[in-house]
Amino acid sequence: MATNTWVEIDPLTPFSLSNLPFAIATTPLDPNPHIVTAIGAYVLELSTLIGNLSEEAHAVLFSPTDQYHLSRILASDTLNDFASLGRAVHRRVREGLQDLLGDSPTFPEALRDNPAVRARVMVPMGQAQFRMPVAVGDYTDFYAGYYHARAVGAMFRGEDKALMPNYLHLPVGYHGRSSSVVLSGTGVRRPVGQIVEGSGNPTPVTKPTGKLDLELELGCIVARSSPGLGERVKVEEAGEYIFGYVLLNDWSARDVQKWEYVPLGPFNGKNFATTISPWVVTADALEPYRVKPSVELGVETQEYLRQGREDRVFDIQLEVDLTTAEGVTTTISRTNSRHLVWSFEQMIAHHTLGGCPLRTGDLLGSGTISGPGGPGEAGCLLEATLDGSKPIEVQADGKTVTRSYLEDGDTITLRGFCGPEGARVGFGECTGRIEAAKWP
Amino acid sequence: MATNTWVEIDPLTPFSLSNLPFAIATTPLDPNPHIVTAIGAYVLELSTLIGNLSEEAHAVLFSPTDQYHLSRILASDTLNDFASLGRAVHRRVREGLQDLLGDSPTFPEALRDNPAVRARVMVPMGQAQFRMPVAVGDYTDFYAGYYHARAVGAMFRGEDKALMPNYLHLPVGYHGRSSSVVLSGTGVRRPVGQIVEGSGNPTPVTKPTGKLDLELELGCIVARSSPGLGERVKVEEAGEYIFGYVLLNDWSARDVQKWEYVPLGPFNGKNFATTISPWVVTADALEPYRVKPSVELGVETQEYLRQGREDRVFDIQLEVDLTTAEGVTTTISRTNSRHLVWSFEQMIAHHTLGGCPLRTGDLLGSGTISGPGGPGEAGCLLEATLDGSKPIEVQADGKTVTRSYLEDGDTITLRGFCGPEGARVGFGECTGRIEAAKWP
Repeated sequence: MATNTWVEIDPLTPFSLSNLPFAIATTPLDPNPHIVTAIGAYVLELSTLIGNLSEEAHAVLFSPTDQYHLSRILASDTLNDFASLGRAVHRRVREGLQDLLGDSPTFPEALRDNPAVRARVMVPMGQAQFRMPVAVGDYTDFYAGYYHARAVGAMFRGEDKALMPNYLHLPVGYHGRSSSVVLSGTGVRRPVGQIVEGSGNPTPVTKPTGKLDLELELGCIVARSSPGLGERVKVEEAGEYIFGYVLLNDWSARDVQKWEYVPLGPFNGKNFATTISPWVVTADALEPYRVKPSVELGVETQEYLRQGREDRVFDIQLEVDLTTAEGVTTTISRTNSRHLVWSFEQMIAHHTLGGCPLRTGDLLGSGTISGPGGPGEAGCLLEATLDGSKPIEVQADGKTVTRSYLEDGDTITLRGFCGPEGARVGFGECTGRIEAAKWP
Repeated sequence: MATNTWVEIDPLTPFSLSNLPFAIATTPLDPNPHIVTAIGAYVLELSTLIGNLSEEAHAVLFSPTDQYHLSRILASDTLNDFASLGRAVHRRVREGLQDLLGDSPTFPEALRDNPAVRARVMVPMGQAQFRMPVAVGDYTDFYAGYYHARAVGAMFRGEDKALMPNYLHLPVGYHGRSSSVVLSGTGVRRPVGQIVEGSGNPTPVTKPTGKLDLELELGCIVARSSPGLGERVKVEEAGEYIFGYVLLNDWSARDVQKWEYVPLGPFNGKNFATTISPWVVTADALEPYRVKPSVELGVETQEYLRQGREDRVFDIQLEVDLTTAEGVTTTISRTNSRHLVWSFEQMIAHHTLGGCPLRTGDLLGSGTISGPGGPGEAGCLLEATLDGSKPIEVQADGKTVTRSYLEDGDTITLRGFCGPEGARVGFGECTGRIEAAKWP
């Protein structure tokens, strides 16, 4: 397989030939939302490209897919129908595109040596407007970031009770809210909620949250629907149900969450917004970056969760930037997704164990990802600042300021990538800016 | 408004002229799923009926709706588009139908005195096959049944800590799973899950639940979508966002739930199936049956939850039948929805307080409804049997047997109705039969 492309790319681009993620965009060439991929600083109009290949080129590069059908699906306004075609088709399409974009294409006249076609299918990325990549049916958020779960547990229950007993045996998760999953770039209004101030005072006040937080997560998009109600997906088959991955910011209002979450879990403290990146990095693109989790739970795994391989998670470098209202940026966290202790295959096996159906486009969040190294590796401010008691420092307009939690006008940007320069597999950015509360 | 109908009806039918609920069905007259209403033992083909009215009859009975548009929407395969038209349209359509079906119709030739039209639009209910009434976007389950929350809390935490402090101040709820919301009549497979046996033993085993339970609830279907991310719906406007109500059984696996639910709430213990009735009873049909909740929380209500009326809930008589595999039925519970302590308007105001969007077709569950009078008024077996320690008696094939929790082959049927004989407003039935687990 080609690793170099004839397209001129920045060696630091997350969109090398090794990646080829998928997104939904409108462009000057096609004002209807449709599926695109990325190569360097360009998006590629896939329906047009595939639809105009010669029969021979399609047969060699993309068989056994039907050219008309594939081109039509690539014109969709969500990735759902494409995702539902299954891993074999995603793989075939990505490999066909790697041939077309590689430095020794089988059909040079199909794209590389054809200025007319290039003009019809290559669009500078800055001219594309992105849309939600998938129609999300259900959103489930897990809690598989070991160091985050331990640090937050220790903060609230003490070091010896940091992890609840069930944490060692199952991927703890809860049902989130799909109606508030939004695209990177969408403004996030500071939510209002019931808040109890001080301790020992059980009378809440209703007001804007004073503890608005981010949560750095990896999201997984479900490809095929599971067999149905009452049927499970075995862990060894679960990989076939994964379309790809996004960056995910599960914004949280810690004061609202703290008051409401017993006994039924987080509700308004979480459901006001969840931001995902526009680019879905395919499961195949991340396959070479599988690693062992950085930590093991030290108990025997229930049989239905035994995946039969040690390299269950990905070696994705993750970063969080905070940009103040004045436009000054500080990288406040650097961590890695190998700190997840459960894989998405295990999450799928657990989620369907009782027969709960998964559907194409469902979104699974990993849980907040933090490293073991303290505030600079924390995936949220609750953990980095010890619930605001030790504020972190960020740069503002020529001076250093502190943050316990997010302030109006702050922008959070998540980034993630694997691989060496020139062959990076990354997500681009997942951003959101805090807007002032609307209250009363 | 007419209260008597020219259609011959059983005085005990839940589908009197005062009701006119909506459902999705296929019939011998129209094999495509479409919208129907019910009168006595008949379903009525609404698209055909409305589409074939004279212009004058439509104008008088259904203006200002557009006849073509309304007829087209009534041919939909879900109620979503109809629901999104808003309360004024639902009310107008119901009132127009009450005229057509009432004992002094303005246009007798439109239906009553026209055998040809009657033959094209009236179908014996037994010939109709029902479908899911709405495409559910998100499903949220609240916990507003006061006596249930108190009884279960007392069981697990003792009488003095029965209600958590937040219970008095907000409608506690959690996000459920929309992919497993199913129509009445769908089989419910006994789920498998992680279960810890005995106490003080933190190693779970994976096996079929031994504590399969029902939960008697009222469900609310959202009509209009809320204004969007970051916008709230005020409690005094919330009624306009309600299309109607269904019976809802939130099946639960108590042993699975107990192990998994700390700290993020119920997950696999709840997400394997939630059953709803096919008929959506409109908000208007229940309006005459508003009453005060049977209990007050005794604290000052937060301003955003003050509804400005005391009659916030409905006087709906509710019953639960258990039918054994041999086909013998025992009514195991009789209670009333006035034991809900928060209204659906309050739930909507709370749900959107932080800016979480509601969408047409979203489903809100009330939480389990129990009365104060012990096992015979309990809305679930956890409560009726004190977690299995005091089994209830049910009738089987010529003998009395006990139930701690549900057994394979048991069928649970929920029923609910208001009003006097001849003018009943009811839901029909919401049923599900337990199928054996599929394990390993």
